[in-house]
Amino acid sequence: MKLNIALLAGDGIGPEVIEQAVKVSDAIAQKYGHEITWKPALTGAAAIDAVGEPYPDSTHEVCKNADAVLFGAIGHPKYDNDPSAPVRPEQGLLKMRKALGLFANVRPTFTFPSLLDKSPLKRERIEGTDLVFLRELTGGIYFGEKGRKDNGDTAFDNCVYTRTEVQRLAKKGFELAMTRSKKLCCVDKANVLETSRLWRETVQAMEKDYPEVEVSYEFVDAVAMRLVQWPNSYDVLITENLFGDILTDEASVISGSMGLMPSASMGAEVSLFEPIHGSYPQATGLNIANPMATVLSAAMMFENFGLMEEGKAMRDAVNKALEAGVVTEDLADGGKAYGTKEVGDWLAANV
Amino acid sequence: MKLNIALLAGDGIGPEVIEQAVKVSDAIAQKYGHEITWKPALTGAAAIDAVGEPYPDSTHEVCKNADAVLFGAIGHPKYDNDPSAPVRPEQGLLKMRKALGLFANVRPTFTFPSLLDKSPLKRERIEGTDLVFLRELTGGIYFGEKGRKDNGDTAFDNCVYTRTEVQRLAKKGFELAMTRSKKLCCVDKANVLETSRLWRETVQAMEKDYPEVEVSYEFVDAVAMRLVQWPNSYDVLITENLFGDILTDEASVISGSMGLMPSASMGAEVSLFEPIHGSYPQATGLNIANPMATVLSAAMMFENFGLMEEGKAMRDAVNKALEAGVVTEDLADGGKAYGTKEVGDWLAANV
Ligand SMILES: CC(C)[C@H](C(=O)O)[C@@H](O)C(=O)O
Ligand SMILES: CC(C)[C@H](C(=O)O)[C@@H](O)C(=O)O
Repeated sequence: MKLNIALLAGDGIGPEVIEQAVKVSDAIAQKYGHEITWKPALTGAAAIDAVGEPYPDSTHEVCKNADAVLFGAIGHPKYDNDPSAPVRPEQGLLKMRKALGLFANVRPTFTFPSLLDKSPLKRERIEGTDLVFLRELTGGIYFGEKGRKDNGDTAFDNCVYTRTEVQRLAKKGFELAMTRSKKLCCVDKANVLETSRLWRETVQAMEKDYPEVEVSYEFVDAVAMRLVQWPNSYDVLITENLFGDILTDEASVISGSMGLMPSASMGAEVSLFEPIHGSYPQATGLNIANPMATVLSAAMMFENFGLMEEGKAMRDAVNKALEAGVVTEDLADGGKAYGTKEVGDWLAANV
Repeated sequence: MKLNIALLAGDGIGPEVIEQAVKVSDAIAQKYGHEITWKPALTGAAAIDAVGEPYPDSTHEVCKNADAVLFGAIGHPKYDNDPSAPVRPEQGLLKMRKALGLFANVRPTFTFPSLLDKSPLKRERIEGTDLVFLRELTGGIYFGEKGRKDNGDTAFDNCVYTRTEVQRLAKKGFELAMTRSKKLCCVDKANVLETSRLWRETVQAMEKDYPEVEVSYEFVDAVAMRLVQWPNSYDVLITENLFGDILTDEASVISGSMGLMPSASMGAEVSLFEPIHGSYPQATGLNIANPMATVLSAAMMFENFGLMEEGKAMRDAVNKALEAGVVTEDLADGGKAYGTKEVGDWLAANV
């Protein structure tokens, strides 16, 4: 297969972890006879510094014409304490999601047996957890009309959803449930919000097309509780943009393996793959960041092209590294810590 | 003191737990020479069944003219799977909050040494946790314009906040922080929402009036994570209505003492006190519900009248009961379980 991959390394540790994922992907490509062309492009604070905007048109061109996007992380502390700065890295992220139509954010939370003790939860609560959130990513209150009135003393954000947007996301949820345990949970706040009632009635109407899928409906506040109490009682969860933002981050810390969690953002044309850990500015350039989440994101990318064996080879390499203790300091537990590059080299040599 | 208390027992286990709180409050009143007149009124599913609405005008009259409201729980399974039913118990709750102007929901999360092992979190993560959320309760997306367009295919919910609403809530937050560790965390999503930017700039402008309070600003998704990782790193948190709904519920399960958590909803004129556990319909009438959260809610009520000693006597009685093992089955851990009434009797005899 010939693959054209846009490479958006971004800020902080982004470039370092992306470098390792490229290395491992290239090793896979060589082993399985694929040809990857990497197309680097600017994004985030790095792009603001270079050209004054976080998602420049030139970057959009690269992404649009690629078969997939591999993304590092964006965000820089110089923007953190000023949410009303005229140009911010996050705006680039939102613009990119909208412009590429990345409507479904896929966020798995699973456990690694060797890392269970890193979880803040007791072992019996977290063991066996293997869930996936599908978060709607291009609608809702993120993209509705927002602004001020009354000389700035009143602010508003409008949350809007259309039936088509809900169907598109829910369809992915039903399909994913069919490949797993056939359990789907629709998370909403239908006892208060009209948009949630639209979500619920739309999903209810789709149930008949997937008679094997058992669908449950839960309020967002109840899910925020049960995720901590019994995370392994969930399988596939679908939800709107803002609820998804909060719940996927909550879910990411329960496993204790946050530094290893990949994600995908699927669009109709192109999809994007990225680690969830963010730009971790304090670690920039120190060769200590854990590259495994980015490597696992690249594995999701291969699988999304139907290259299941390739994806599995990458996952297996990560598991082997964990077992062999070839890990960065976040997982070293007092033992020997390898550098970002060394872990990348080991993985590339072991796929 | 002469106290006029509206008594809204509500649904499910509400009436049973309220009965115990009344018993214990009466014992306190007798001991300290107060006179409480209880004014029962209908609410929730019970009110729908009786008069067709969940918060009838007659109930509002009783609440408005009372010195405080003691509230049980509302909600009934017959409404659960139909969020678009024309009349629902929750509507009564929202109507009541708005009509009584209960703008600040006070939700503490603390631990009881004897119950630490009930937490889903590891002991070292939860030990020492003692935080309070102040959730804005009468604004935001709950009360903004909502509806449908395009023949029902588009739904919208508008989130609106005014500077005055934010100031009113934040003032309570600063004041509460001054009585505690002087740490205040403002939770928002200022990197995306205009209402959050209004929250943040309003709180920032108030900092100078409370120079001793150390204020931090965190995004809601980050708080959803840190609540699970390091709950004891928080003290007072202020936030808007919907974020508060999700985060206070998340916080309620981390301590392992959910069945014991009280809450208050403060208004300019009257305030309301209620356990957070809800109506727990399966347990209705079985004399197994834990009345301690309601008793602790009554303790908050006394303290809100400035009757600190009375409140403390009630808390102490609960602590003594926990130590003596006079507990309902949720806390009995295989040992002897007392009934709801028996725990109430014991507490009344021991204040
Ligand atoms: C940075 C921010 C705009 C973004 C979001 O809220 O979507 C982030 O939290 C995420 O989840 O990717
Ligand atoms: C029942 C529901 C409307 C309510 C809310 O969302 O405010 C509840 O979840 C709560 O937190 O009191």
